[in-house]
Amino acid sequence: MEHFPTPEDHPDREVLTWAGFGHAIRDLARMVAASHWQPDVTVAVARGGLVPAGALAYALETKAMGTLNVEFYTGVGATLEEPQVLPPALDVNELMGKRVLVVDDVADSGKTLLLVLQLLAEQGADVRSAVLYTKPTSIVVPDYTWQNTSAWIMFPWSSLPPVTGAASTDA
Amino acid sequence: MEHFPTPEDHPDREVLTWAGFGHAIRDLARMVAASHWQPDVTVAVARGGLVPAGALAYALETKAMGTLNVEFYTGVGATLEEPQVLPPALDVNELMGKRVLVVDDVADSGKTLLLVLQLLAEQGADVRSAVLYTKPTSIVVPDYTWQNTSAWIMFPWSSLPPVTGAASTDA
Repeated sequence: MEHFPTPEDHPDREVLTWAGFGHAIRDLARMVAASHWQPDVTVAVARGGLVPAGALAYALETKAMGTLNVEFYTGVGATLEEPQVLPPALDVNELMGKRVLVVDDVADSGKTLLLVLQLLAEQGADVRSAVLYTKPTSIVVPDYTWQNTSAWIMFPWSSLPPVTGAASTDA
Repeated sequence: MEHFPTPEDHPDREVLTWAGFGHAIRDLARMVAASHWQPDVTVAVARGGLVPAGALAYALETKAMGTLNVEFYTGVGATLEEPQVLPPALDVNELMGKRVLVVDDVADSGKTLLLVLQLLAEQGADVRSAVLYTKPTSIVVPDYTWQNTSAWIMFPWSSLPPVTGAASTDA
């Protein structure tokens, strides 16, 4: 059976509860609003960006939304993991000339965010990024970050193990 | 100034907190898992479906995600509001033959859900739907519903007014 990480495994950890997430999103939305840049479209980086993107869209009154699937993979002969965009695809042509807010849960290596920002900038979008957390290891500095941390982050949507069957119960 | 609805305006109301949402998603995920139908792709109906879809995807270990933008409009000469799919588009061709879980916050009239389910079924997807709440007015019965209610629902992502500027503060 796969070992699911628990907070006890990580002494330097940041635990975000659902209630804490609610406050974080309000803070993050205020940062965006304070910059007087109103997004036309919110693009969530799957999967971690879905929950913050959905909540941010309401707080910022942005209606149009999209999702980009990015996963890390190690190519044949490659030693470093690199992110790639996977299906199902978003029609990024429709983002040309739009103000697009890219949302993810965390900028860790920052490679995912960089890939998405470059992809959308190439489409002629006026693109900015918002994340809950930025790690010092990130190669990009997001336009809006709720908190900077080097801790191991437990998000409320991934702190419990997946539900694997009818008999699964939460501790 | 626009009046933002408050719980006090609606005596018959259902208030979902962020913490309550966390429990609801675990329950809903267990319903899906108990049916032994593992989705390949989770499709969120924007905007209300984004937050539940993101959290469900983690609970069900589904990686690929998509978003469909659906809004109600009243056409010229039409008296009834009908939903339509708006940009940016999801490449639904890539969903052919896939098990697709469509997620929304609520099946109210059910028209949005019906439109999306028909659209994806036409693409040859094996499509099912999951919602937090189903109203008795819904013209479709979602495959998975956390709760049936006729109450006015306050979701945690839309219970506070939008953040409109730097000076906005939560009460």
